[in-house]
Amino acid sequence: MKLPTGFRAAGVRAGIKPSGKPDLGLVVSDEPMAWAIATTRNLVRAPCVTRNRARAASEQAVRALVVNAGNANCANGEEGIWDNDEFANVAARSLGLSRPQEVLTASTGVIGRKLPMDLVRAGVPQAAAALGDDVEPFAEAILTTDLVTKVAEVRLGGGGRVVGVAKGSGMIHPNLATMLAFVFTDAGLDQPALRAVWADVVGRTFNQVTVDGDTSTNDMAIVLANGRRPAGREELAGALGWVSTELARAIARDGEGATTLITVDVAGGRDERDAFAAARAVAGSSLVKAAVHGRDPNWGRILSAIGQSGAVADLSAVAIRLQGTVVYRGHPLPFDATELSRAMRSPDVRIAIDLAAGAAEGVAWGCDLSADYVKINALYTT
Amino acid sequence: MKLPTGFRAAGVRAGIKPSGKPDLGLVVSDEPMAWAIATTRNLVRAPCVTRNRARAASEQAVRALVVNAGNANCANGEEGIWDNDEFANVAARSLGLSRPQEVLTASTGVIGRKLPMDLVRAGVPQAAAALGDDVEPFAEAILTTDLVTKVAEVRLGGGGRVVGVAKGSGMIHPNLATMLAFVFTDAGLDQPALRAVWADVVGRTFNQVTVDGDTSTNDMAIVLANGRRPAGREELAGALGWVSTELARAIARDGEGATTLITVDVAGGRDERDAFAAARAVAGSSLVKAAVHGRDPNWGRILSAIGQSGAVADLSAVAIRLQGTVVYRGHPLPFDATELSRAMRSPDVRIAIDLAAGAAEGVAWGCDLSADYVKINALYTT
Repeated sequence: MKLPTGFRAAGVRAGIKPSGKPDLGLVVSDEPMAWAIATTRNLVRAPCVTRNRARAASEQAVRALVVNAGNANCANGEEGIWDNDEFANVAARSLGLSRPQEVLTASTGVIGRKLPMDLVRAGVPQAAAALGDDVEPFAEAILTTDLVTKVAEVRLGGGGRVVGVAKGSGMIHPNLATMLAFVFTDAGLDQPALRAVWADVVGRTFNQVTVDGDTSTNDMAIVLANGRRPAGREELAGALGWVSTELARAIARDGEGATTLITVDVAGGRDERDAFAAARAVAGSSLVKAAVHGRDPNWGRILSAIGQSGAVADLSAVAIRLQGTVVYRGHPLPFDATELSRAMRSPDVRIAIDLAAGAAEGVAWGCDLSADYVKINALYTT
Repeated sequence: MKLPTGFRAAGVRAGIKPSGKPDLGLVVSDEPMAWAIATTRNLVRAPCVTRNRARAASEQAVRALVVNAGNANCANGEEGIWDNDEFANVAARSLGLSRPQEVLTASTGVIGRKLPMDLVRAGVPQAAAALGDDVEPFAEAILTTDLVTKVAEVRLGGGGRVVGVAKGSGMIHPNLATMLAFVFTDAGLDQPALRAVWADVVGRTFNQVTVDGDTSTNDMAIVLANGRRPAGREELAGALGWVSTELARAIARDGEGATTLITVDVAGGRDERDAFAAARAVAGSSLVKAAVHGRDPNWGRILSAIGQSGAVADLSAVAIRLQGTVVYRGHPLPFDATELSRAMRSPDVRIAIDLAAGAAEGVAWGCDLSADYVKINALYTT
């Protein structure tokens, strides 16, 4: 997939991943870009997260983004901060940028191991020399245990494009459980408008992917916009939302050991906050996830998850639809369990809920909980 | 184990459980009792929970408690409410009590199936006829998929005793995931004092058992005190705390598919709320639980769980001790991973954390996450 106009990217093998797979990605724009970031809420944050947040607070434009996989450079004390700064410095030098502040950084991988700076210093110039207009090498270089690259694209009316790439979050390799999402566009908005739009988009998309409930120390979602092409705020917001939804679904579907994407659509919420919270609670319940894995139309677990979400619901009218069949509406409804179980034998299981408390809607994505998840996460050794 | 003075109990086979195991328990006191209750925070509550809460609000004394296993009588609409009332009525009649309001009810089992009232009407008088001073038949009758009965006892200085029984919570059979705990004592406090003590005890014990994060629709913890023996408030509070801690540990250890009890001790919290929250977050992290199952000294997951707990921590000084070995103190410390993994091959794994933010302490209990958990919860079919 081609990058939007004015962007170039690369992905190379720096040797940071023991597997020898691509592990260093670089993206650069011909001109300064407006940008916005959402990061992990975990109190334990990697230096790349802290530094990018400080960059965002400065409200200055940026030119480039450098990412490594295989090492999170997190919980490494002072040394980790210096190494992360040096990561940006090396990228700025390699790209001929005079200000390293114009470079954002991201790391994903094992926590508590020193970033191998010799490999970084050799790999970044190699990436700078390999820059091109295809997003795929970059998309591959940011993966950890993801099985597939995750890219999505929308074309805008004015000729511009939105291209997003991501790597998986949670239910992926322990200590490597990071969600990274980068969305590039040659459309543009002024910085304050872009920030407002991005916060809203991330809240409805990446924050609604629930996997094993753990939040990584390195999670971040960044949008970079060079503003070359005309685009209205509504159009761009819609496009960012569409691309981010596609990436969120791809992340959930590629969860560790997952066989099924679970989509939970909630209607009838008192407000959006409630609707999104109920959707997330159902998609994140271990019991619901295990039931989906076993193709068990177990609406009791869904009802219980709604109840513990904190969302207001009219329990005398709450309705649950599982793979198209209404199984509960204030009280249990008769259904053919064998047939419904058969309908659940699909890589896409959809749960639709009416909270009967208002008109707000929300959605969340998750994946089933398989024995493979436990095996992968128990057998991995630090 | 003998009940405290003035209590009698029974457990019988009413036929509610398909297995034919004991499934109906009854406890009665010779005189009115002070009591207190803590219940599930799930918005979806079984009629027994709703009714007991209304009884508590009336501040009236009670005489008896009747419990069934095998059917939660939850999400059954209006009919479930009538059936639960009738459950109490039948118990009152069988015990010769003129006021059914003096009888508390509890149900645990499958959600959304009608309580078989013919079996209840036959079983309750049978239990009333079998009353005795041994707690064990009652402890057995309240189990669902628990592997063992859970009882604990403390003797008080004035000759009184505290005897508690419980059944497992979470990580137990789907739709049967309920924690029930009943603590009986022949000591006593006035109702307001008992309520204050019980709220504090439950917050430090049963609420700190974390299993799969799901909260049942039927959870409750009740203390019943007939006040025959003298006991000071501090002494009784201590005894209730000890018994409840023992039951909480027993519940965690008997989690579905669990091989290991995980105890998380937190020190250095800014306040107790933080310390308990951090302990619960670590004990409840799927990644930590899977790591313990794999005997993997993966401190990165513990640090990340602390970070997402919301507790204040001085990250430059946070310390993590795993099975006695300090593995992290502001930065990673060297340790022999093979030896530590070997030390983790125990039915008891202890994680000790210093948040370095104050002097408050907290504790939580959980269990490891095994592939058996997933199998049990996926293969069960409604």
